[in-house]
Amino acid sequence: MNLTEYRHIQNIVRPHISQTPVLSSTILNETYGAKLLFKCENFQKTGSFKFRGALYAAQAKLSKHNVDLLTGHSSGNFAQALAKTAQFLKKQAVLVMPENAPSTKVEAVQRYGGEIIFSGNSPSDRENKMAEYLKINPEAVFIHPSNDLDMIHGNATCAGEFLEMHPEIENLIVPVGGGGLLAGTALARHSLSPETAVYGAEPAGADDAQKSFQSQSIVPSIAPDTIADGLRTQLGDQNFPIILEYVEDILTVTDEEIIEAMKDIYRFLKIVIEPSSAVPLALVRKQPRIFKDKINGIILTGGNIDFRTLAHLITNN
Amino acid sequence: MNLTEYRHIQNIVRPHISQTPVLSSTILNETYGAKLLFKCENFQKTGSFKFRGALYAAQAKLSKHNVDLLTGHSSGNFAQALAKTAQFLKKQAVLVMPENAPSTKVEAVQRYGGEIIFSGNSPSDRENKMAEYLKINPEAVFIHPSNDLDMIHGNATCAGEFLEMHPEIENLIVPVGGGGLLAGTALARHSLSPETAVYGAEPAGADDAQKSFQSQSIVPSIAPDTIADGLRTQLGDQNFPIILEYVEDILTVTDEEIIEAMKDIYRFLKIVIEPSSAVPLALVRKQPRIFKDKINGIILTGGNIDFRTLAHLITNN
Repeated sequence: MNLTEYRHIQNIVRPHISQTPVLSSTILNETYGAKLLFKCENFQKTGSFKFRGALYAAQAKLSKHNVDLLTGHSSGNFAQALAKTAQFLKKQAVLVMPENAPSTKVEAVQRYGGEIIFSGNSPSDRENKMAEYLKINPEAVFIHPSNDLDMIHGNATCAGEFLEMHPEIENLIVPVGGGGLLAGTALARHSLSPETAVYGAEPAGADDAQKSFQSQSIVPSIAPDTIADGLRTQLGDQNFPIILEYVEDILTVTDEEIIEAMKDIYRFLKIVIEPSSAVPLALVRKQPRIFKDKINGIILTGGNIDFRTLAHLITNN
Repeated sequence: MNLTEYRHIQNIVRPHISQTPVLSSTILNETYGAKLLFKCENFQKTGSFKFRGALYAAQAKLSKHNVDLLTGHSSGNFAQALAKTAQFLKKQAVLVMPENAPSTKVEAVQRYGGEIIFSGNSPSDRENKMAEYLKINPEAVFIHPSNDLDMIHGNATCAGEFLEMHPEIENLIVPVGGGGLLAGTALARHSLSPETAVYGAEPAGADDAQKSFQSQSIVPSIAPDTIADGLRTQLGDQNFPIILEYVEDILTVTDEEIIEAMKDIYRFLKIVIEPSSAVPLALVRKQPRIFKDKINGIILTGGNIDFRTLAHLITNN
């Protein structure tokens, strides 16, 4: 993606998304011994950065093939993003979601007018149910939540805005699950600020991306075990080559370290985030050799967490 | 306060405070049947708007009478604000705080280098202890947390920024406790946007300001009973005449209504606020005759709440 391509994508996405604010805290900077800037995608429409990707991917695909039906599978944030995208484009959205999806996410999808087909709880259950649906409805436009170049390009606008607002950023740190945000961030950096380093931050209990990066071939995510529910999925053939080429490193943190970082973000930034969003800050504390005394830009990816879950996580740990 | 005076104050305050963001939510707008804009002073330095007033008041007073010691009494937010102000100005701060102040607020004051003298828990306990201290230390510059014209002028920059960013605001709604923010908001509105109406929102369990407004004479706050701990104090002779002249009305809501609004702000704005900050949104729901279908600007005054308290308030109500 060169700068002209980036500007084209940005022009399509920008009028319809929130230009989310960047927050910082003197106390957090002192505590972590680094300058920390937080791009607040928890304030993005639908509560996560996925709306950027979904909005761009849907428009890109519909411009080639204009149909009335958008579909995808998701455990939560992407379902909300695609449902709202469809509502905005006056299309229909059908989402495959696991039976154990939190009721707040299910209600949000329905509020945007999305139709839900429930599947079993594993990623492969969702994919199988999705394949069944697409066999019966071959006209539907399918969008993958992370392994889709248009999604990656739409996601890139988050880091793009961040770098244009703060060109001084030395390290960009983003959570890695399916890899769609990490790849988009790496592309934006490449176009706008090649000297900035991009790091992926991953839960130790779902370290398939780190293993993939080290072995240079995609390692599947088998039985991931982490509270960072948005980061349990695995990389794909569309985002992995980009990550291999443009990302500095992928590093992990434990769930205990994630919870400590969540508490700090709640207490000093005064905002509500989901556990996945706390992974990069946990990494800053864990790897002072890389991040100390540097200007670190962190993307807070989303804020879709049920209050009881948040209360339980923070008050019981 | 005319526009020239406002610009003078703004120029002193602006370089040292955060230009806090304004957030909004489509779902909240739909739920409340109004356009709602939220000025997020929970993200202000020290976690509340009080830093604006403290910073301006300290500089205004020290410019006339340059001493090394700043002092004041506070149950929390003002103590943090004055301690940080003193740190910034390289002065000493001595704060009278109640013995039952939350440990997070006490720790924050100490982190900014403030010295604390504990008093009994009632406002009059604090005032008596403060008077004792000032008798022994007559050289100290005393700043009242709300009933001080310089505080009021510094606070005015919050509504000022808000109105300059969103001149379309039809109603400005702010919580009223001691009256320092309401008076400052009314003055800023008078200078910048005379057509905008200013409303005070007060807990029904501490409705002394409403009674004062209706009777046109200050009614003391006796045994206030509300979860909005920042709003239990009473109006004073400096802010009351301004409120009487420039404020449209002061209206009340119950604690149950405050908690409902807190939940909505947590869930849809994804931010952490203290109960006092939720009072204006509760008022929007309660008074559709005034606020429905209007563009309402709400100042979210602060975010200094212990997580366990927040969790308890929201999950048990």
